[in-house]
Amino acid sequence: MNRTDATDARWMARALELARRGLYTTHPNPRVGCVLVHDGRMVGEGWHERAGEPHAEVNALRAAGEQARGATAYVTLEPCSHQGRTGPCARALVEAGVARVVVAMRDPNPAVSGRGLRILEQAGITVECGLMAEEATALNPGFIKRMAHSLPFVRLKMAMSLDGRTAMASGESQWITGAAARGWGQRLRAQSSAILSGVDAVSMDGSRLTVRQPALIEAGLSEEAARAAAHDQLLRVVVDSTLRLSPQAPMLAEPGRTLVATLVDDPGRQAPLREAGAELIVLPAREGRVDLMALMRQLVEQEACNELLLESGPGLAGAMLAAGLVDELKLFMAPTLLGSDARGLLNLPGLERMDQQQTLVIDDIRAVGDDWCITARPCRAATGAVN
Amino acid sequence: MNRTDATDARWMARALELARRGLYTTHPNPRVGCVLVHDGRMVGEGWHERAGEPHAEVNALRAAGEQARGATAYVTLEPCSHQGRTGPCARALVEAGVARVVVAMRDPNPAVSGRGLRILEQAGITVECGLMAEEATALNPGFIKRMAHSLPFVRLKMAMSLDGRTAMASGESQWITGAAARGWGQRLRAQSSAILSGVDAVSMDGSRLTVRQPALIEAGLSEEAARAAAHDQLLRVVVDSTLRLSPQAPMLAEPGRTLVATLVDDPGRQAPLREAGAELIVLPAREGRVDLMALMRQLVEQEACNELLLESGPGLAGAMLAAGLVDELKLFMAPTLLGSDARGLLNLPGLERMDQQQTLVIDDIRAVGDDWCITARPCRAATGAVN
Repeated sequence: MNRTDATDARWMARALELARRGLYTTHPNPRVGCVLVHDGRMVGEGWHERAGEPHAEVNALRAAGEQARGATAYVTLEPCSHQGRTGPCARALVEAGVARVVVAMRDPNPAVSGRGLRILEQAGITVECGLMAEEATALNPGFIKRMAHSLPFVRLKMAMSLDGRTAMASGESQWITGAAARGWGQRLRAQSSAILSGVDAVSMDGSRLTVRQPALIEAGLSEEAARAAAHDQLLRVVVDSTLRLSPQAPMLAEPGRTLVATLVDDPGRQAPLREAGAELIVLPAREGRVDLMALMRQLVEQEACNELLLESGPGLAGAMLAAGLVDELKLFMAPTLLGSDARGLLNLPGLERMDQQQTLVIDDIRAVGDDWCITARPCRAATGAVN
Repeated sequence: MNRTDATDARWMARALELARRGLYTTHPNPRVGCVLVHDGRMVGEGWHERAGEPHAEVNALRAAGEQARGATAYVTLEPCSHQGRTGPCARALVEAGVARVVVAMRDPNPAVSGRGLRILEQAGITVECGLMAEEATALNPGFIKRMAHSLPFVRLKMAMSLDGRTAMASGESQWITGAAARGWGQRLRAQSSAILSGVDAVSMDGSRLTVRQPALIEAGLSEEAARAAAHDQLLRVVVDSTLRLSPQAPMLAEPGRTLVATLVDDPGRQAPLREAGAELIVLPAREGRVDLMALMRQLVEQEACNELLLESGPGLAGAMLAAGLVDELKLFMAPTLLGSDARGLLNLPGLERMDQQQTLVIDDIRAVGDDWCITARPCRAATGAVN
């Protein structure tokens, strides 16, 4: 890396850092950061905070004012070319007289990818693309997956014992993992557009599937960040093929929306849940249950769902995995043994021979309090798209 | 740490390194290393290689010759005070005119602990004890456990999937983990005095329970070290309460001894296995099966077993854990999911409530090829002694 490259990387790293500030709030938009540098000095920086508010580039340009003229802009994602709520950022950069734009990655939407760069180039701006692309990609797995594949990025989160058990045979499970792991679980919720579970799991545990500000503060977020993150509750989605969810389920009394995905198309049977505040979505069946691929498509089309957190029992988790819909596993492993009578992690029906096993790549294992967090991804279904 | 301490630590570290050379060969003796230093210069070093051969101190004194006079001796274990096959090492150090002795840890045998140090002190030698005691303890978990508690140090080794499964429901299991993990498994066998399994596991897998020189070389040992390690096969112990082991079991054709622990006291029923080369040991029953504590005592009393490697199915592994007889778990975790129909890791009968769970301390998690090795120990039974 020569000196120019190192300087560019330094400013792009700052732009990535700024982008991360939007981790919990930009849904359904991507997290983006921007730094404007003139004569080796930062003259303006910005990030995208919330849908409807200005994009990162606009915030940075406002901060820089006249100093943007002749500056280099470092942006973590290709500036947009469309007239959205805040106008095309590529045009804004041109109009501000920026001399050079360094972009970490292209727009993942194949319909518009490259257009923003072209606008800049046609205005005579020097454009470079690809610096720290891997880090930029990691910022927005959900937005990228949705744009590229019309599917959400599904993260399966489970808490288990060292011998792969999630609960006693009786169902007793609270708590296998410790406070630190549960705090991380809250952070994963907060960065997700929606959370998905099954009716049995939410009924058994009385789950609320909410983001709680105090838990986020305990998990290391500042009070301000925790408030922002908990402000818009993520969409709760419950798979309930035969409509067994109780209208008294605690989550229905929580702020935010609950979507019940069902096969039951009978308004009379739907009424009690609707009256309790749930929204219902009737989906086609697949092997007698809600077609999970159809649900994923709906969550993208209707809800612009980027990251979907899957917190469920072994049935739904196994079905999502078997359907190739899981992109990442976050397994919180407690240093304990529950024994073979306890409940298993995943039902993977039809898996009878070793050569059918679901192999994974483990990307990371780290201590989280007294527990360990394993981050892995399925070897098949790198894109998750299996039909 | 002042300069003297740092110098002492440096030489003790060398003595520990030498001791480790005996990892696979000293059974039933401890691994011990010794360095003699005169005027800041190493004048002789040695380690204990094999029972019946000289102790570390004697080897170091021989190497040093006259230069031992006035030297400092660094020894990883208190020099012995008894007239064994090679004479008391404490006396040998006195006779060689050593001026100072630095010892990492005392003899763990309460009947003789401190005697060696006393011999040295009474001869006017400066004696210091406790430098790098933790490292010295880790060298000889089995010898120390046997001396202090009349029990072997039991290491439970299992290979499992990420969801805690060891085999498909059909029993198909070869191989869950990769070559690197299997190589580590061979090293664990080679450093053990004995290997313990159950009749069902060995019958299903046709296990040989042997140490194989080529596998050790693949696992990183030099050819010479691998040959030495594989030379004396570890004792194979099969728990077989009702005597179902086949006289045609492959392990009976292997070099080394096979001990079958049974409740069956009928010479007629024992004869076929005896004729096939097995040794039988009849033990008292506990809940209809071989009393595992009685077996452990026998392995110490009759076989001077230091480290015992437990490689078994979920039944015996669970019973050993439940009896508080397991000191360490080595779980090789493959990045794969086998699903809840597959076989579990451990049967822990009677475990019905979360507050009965077997909590562990995880000491280490590290990558081994594509797999991960988790080293843990039970929280209860720090000494393993439960009666």
